[in-house]
Amino acid sequence: MSRTNMQILLASRPTDGVQESNFCLVANELPSPGDGEIVVKNQYLSLDPYMRGRMNATKSYASLVALGEVMVGETVGIVVESQNPQFQVHDTVRGSLGWQQYAISDGSNLTKVMVTEHLPASVYLGAVGMPGVTAWVGLFEIGKPQSGETVVISAASGAVGSIAGQLAKSKGCRVVGIAGGKAKCDYVVDELGFDACIDYKAGNLVEELAQATPDGIDVYFENVGGEILEAVLGRVNTFARIPLCGLISRYSESQPVGLRNLTSLLFNRVTLQGFIVGDYADAWPAITRQLGQMITAGQLKYHETIAEGLEHAPAAFIGMLKGQNLGKQLVKLA
Amino acid sequence: MSRTNMQILLASRPTDGVQESNFCLVANELPSPGDGEIVVKNQYLSLDPYMRGRMNATKSYASLVALGEVMVGETVGIVVESQNPQFQVHDTVRGSLGWQQYAISDGSNLTKVMVTEHLPASVYLGAVGMPGVTAWVGLFEIGKPQSGETVVISAASGAVGSIAGQLAKSKGCRVVGIAGGKAKCDYVVDELGFDACIDYKAGNLVEELAQATPDGIDVYFENVGGEILEAVLGRVNTFARIPLCGLISRYSESQPVGLRNLTSLLFNRVTLQGFIVGDYADAWPAITRQLGQMITAGQLKYHETIAEGLEHAPAAFIGMLKGQNLGKQLVKLA
Repeated sequence: MSRTNMQILLASRPTDGVQESNFCLVANELPSPGDGEIVVKNQYLSLDPYMRGRMNATKSYASLVALGEVMVGETVGIVVESQNPQFQVHDTVRGSLGWQQYAISDGSNLTKVMVTEHLPASVYLGAVGMPGVTAWVGLFEIGKPQSGETVVISAASGAVGSIAGQLAKSKGCRVVGIAGGKAKCDYVVDELGFDACIDYKAGNLVEELAQATPDGIDVYFENVGGEILEAVLGRVNTFARIPLCGLISRYSESQPVGLRNLTSLLFNRVTLQGFIVGDYADAWPAITRQLGQMITAGQLKYHETIAEGLEHAPAAFIGMLKGQNLGKQLVKLA
Repeated sequence: MSRTNMQILLASRPTDGVQESNFCLVANELPSPGDGEIVVKNQYLSLDPYMRGRMNATKSYASLVALGEVMVGETVGIVVESQNPQFQVHDTVRGSLGWQQYAISDGSNLTKVMVTEHLPASVYLGAVGMPGVTAWVGLFEIGKPQSGETVVISAASGAVGSIAGQLAKSKGCRVVGIAGGKAKCDYVVDELGFDACIDYKAGNLVEELAQATPDGIDVYFENVGGEILEAVLGRVNTFARIPLCGLISRYSESQPVGLRNLTSLLFNRVTLQGFIVGDYADAWPAITRQLGQMITAGQLKYHETIAEGLEHAPAAFIGMLKGQNLGKQLVKLA
């Protein structure tokens, strides 16, 4: 069966911000699967901040995307042809199949997932996927929040921050989000149940953070960097922990602004630890099982922002880097 | 017995760099010891970078010195009068008795130390005192170097760095120092046995660091901050550990320069952990015992820079902040 496969390639590396012209939409003939291979029709593509680093010419925490190569990205899809006895047609699989409609795989990079009433396929790219596991690992393995402590979460309405904050609430912490704009802050407090959320765009970050954290800050789940990190370092308690999950404010900076209050790390004996969810692959099955159970039980909420059609992935990605999404940014492919 | 006690008080807080005029030398009548008290005649005063923070009006990791108060500082001295059965005249004691010739104490803040052929009284302020324990804790509790790893030590000829580097050598690491000037670098390599030492004043820090760390950097014992930290972050391996012991380059900055390559902490999954030796009080006896044994066995070397006379303590302190000392900076009081 002959199939046309629409793909998005990296056309050029961004010099300042990402532009749509950095991507290129192409149509390719999909080869036939060989013995032991399957054809996956991708349903959803995940858009994540880490992809910004892959577009650069300098080393990120993962290998770069070469020019002319399909952009990397996690997907969930349906098996539509199988020459592999481990996969049946109609199986739903999660994998890193890239920004394209179809992919051929020998299955080694795929995980079968179970779609249920409460767990649609898309959730395996968000709350029960990489972002959810990232939130879990950063919060529990590095942040180690104790009941009664104050946890601050930046990018609080995002795919990772929204889960991290709810997990911290489940441990009995005071949880304060930081997000951009009133709508996001309202969502974080009213829907997700954070104790407070600060709109960093409102211009009173330092004062509002002080008001929202009367007992200081014990854990800061860092997704952003820049002035927000500086403001938090002005409020940290002794022995605070800062899981460093992302620095989205800095990924596009050609002239990064420096962090000026590093002495706070020393005086307050703070641990700042960078981490990448890929280093915790062994823990993935147990964590996703627990996240799935919490969602099914109504204990964990999530939101998705869904762009329709592969051709809109570049614009959706650029929008996500600017914080225009609420919750998990996805692209619906089929 | 009436004694005149020369003391150095904090006269004013530094606005930019520390000036001798920030201190004031005064003569006071020493009161007589009460029941349970002893009189200690200080032999040596230790000068340490942390004291710079105590001179500021803003919170450091320890309480501030009030204006008009005796400057804080560790001392070793001899008991010259005792109304306390736990102390005999001629006992040598270590404590934090401040920048003064004599002190009265109830003994609760003092530790008796044993002066031997290999362990003079002064060593209990350096290699077998606070700096030695700081080096041990930072290196072993936080840095956790493994045999064959590369350890970089800033302020490598200083009281802490010189010990940290030798301890790392004893674990089979490649040890690279960073120090200011050829004389210090020669000392670090020729006397202390580091594998290499980079003169950061020579103007080729980034290139020389790359040459001296062909396998990257696994542990960075940080005493300095600023451009040296940035250079190291450009060379760290994945899962590197950075014990943050001091930031001497930044203590006097009213407009701190920012750290620009924080993304390296994320991409390389680095742990940066501030620590203060005071948090490890329980470990002090065991660590000082081992440090003393290593010195006695000739396995650990140290150097002292000694100013003569309390009145020269301010100039010696200012010189130390500028890196003019080699090894442990002391003031001989008697």
